[in-house]
Amino acid sequence: MKRVVIIGAGNVGFHLGVELAGKGYRIEQVFSRNSSKAEQLANRLEAKAIDRFEDLVLTADLYVIAVKDDALVEVSKQVSLGKKIVVHTSGTVPMEVLKGCSEQIGVFYPLQTFSGNEPMSFEQVPLCVEGNSKQLEDELFQLARSLSKQPFRISSEARKRIHLAAVFACNFTNHMYAISNELLSEENLDVSILSPLIEKTTEKILKGEVPKKVQTGPAAREDIQILQQHEARLKEKPTWQKIYRLVSQSIIELKKT
Amino acid sequence: MKRVVIIGAGNVGFHLGVELAGKGYRIEQVFSRNSSKAEQLANRLEAKAIDRFEDLVLTADLYVIAVKDDALVEVSKQVSLGKKIVVHTSGTVPMEVLKGCSEQIGVFYPLQTFSGNEPMSFEQVPLCVEGNSKQLEDELFQLARSLSKQPFRISSEARKRIHLAAVFACNFTNHMYAISNELLSEENLDVSILSPLIEKTTEKILKGEVPKKVQTGPAAREDIQILQQHEARLKEKPTWQKIYRLVSQSIIELKKT
Repeated sequence: MKRVVIIGAGNVGFHLGVELAGKGYRIEQVFSRNSSKAEQLANRLEAKAIDRFEDLVLTADLYVIAVKDDALVEVSKQVSLGKKIVVHTSGTVPMEVLKGCSEQIGVFYPLQTFSGNEPMSFEQVPLCVEGNSKQLEDELFQLARSLSKQPFRISSEARKRIHLAAVFACNFTNHMYAISNELLSEENLDVSILSPLIEKTTEKILKGEVPKKVQTGPAAREDIQILQQHEARLKEKPTWQKIYRLVSQSIIELKKT
Repeated sequence: MKRVVIIGAGNVGFHLGVELAGKGYRIEQVFSRNSSKAEQLANRLEAKAIDRFEDLVLTADLYVIAVKDDALVEVSKQVSLGKKIVVHTSGTVPMEVLKGCSEQIGVFYPLQTFSGNEPMSFEQVPLCVEGNSKQLEDELFQLARSLSKQPFRISSEARKRIHLAAVFACNFTNHMYAISNELLSEENLDVSILSPLIEKTTEKILKGEVPKKVQTGPAAREDIQILQQHEARLKEKPTWQKIYRLVSQSIIELKKT
């Protein structure tokens, strides 16, 4: 698996392409409908830029489809590569979306958000692989292991669960920061005053503490008086008030399990 | 304000005492009802341990009551110090709880969680001060500034709001990690697989990004299909399902403001 074609020149395509090229893989082509984006990435990877699916070569070993989730179905319909290995990089889309593309299909999903054009090491990026045969999955696992210290075999089903878990741990966490920031802005403060607390909270989890065991705050203490005061304080923000009540209830429930 | 008495030998008392002593303040006494805890901290601070309020000296300039919130009312009733400066260190209790203690009362609230017995620098700890006179507040502000780069004048009202904001940014964030971890445990994984994502999410906020502007995920994209799939997946966890729905709704609402 030494010759690679990258389909999609967005953030994932860029970072995966740079990483593979840096590890000695030969990138043959970069496809993007946007020919200038294809050119730009292809130049960087010493590959050929293409903007039509008919121009895909059949000489590569691995075809990586790194396009947005909602474009994946459409792109899959355009790609037909016989027995070549075709993978997508999505956290949410089942492997089977690729079944018309090839006899050998799989997933190569990096569990990281990529942004900007600064190359980043994949060493600490969890890479989740899946293949439609044991042999292919083994090959993808080897590839993952050659890039990262954290390769995982993850079924489409488990990948969906990871994505859901990531929504809680990242998207919802960010929204908690957002509510916090809005509340503080009414006192002409912002969330930066909480930086040391935020840092500590996250640090504990990154160090491997079990989150429910390090839960603190009024709900964990079942301090009903404070809970009621806080809810009253949120009376003009009904959605946040409901979130306050529900998350507090959930903290109390989880303590009891 | 060079001579200090610390009332309470818990985490805050310990860390504040060690910090003040290290900065050249003279700790005269350490009070704790638990005489061995009083001894232990007093020894460390070269102070005298006491376990009865009658033994409080009147020679100090500043009396710091660093006891748990729910003990503060009770302790306040026991302390009567004429015109001496008396402060508490709570994030939630109004300054007025101290009004029977002295004519000069205030708050000295470090916005950080303290744990363990390893001394830590206060340099980056936001210190929130309040005094019942302009002059006292100025003095407390100077004290805060001598310990930390982040001194703030914060009214009791604003302090309550900061505490509420901290519940969202820290306690609720931790619970999001907890739910995430529980979901992953069903696949024999744990939240550590999300470490790079969690780190990135928090890093953005610590670097000063405005949380609502960097919101990502299915709710931010209003990707109804994924939102429905995720809710369905949570059907056996009704509280988490409600949290999912409500936080997603809140993300969409906040985007529109």
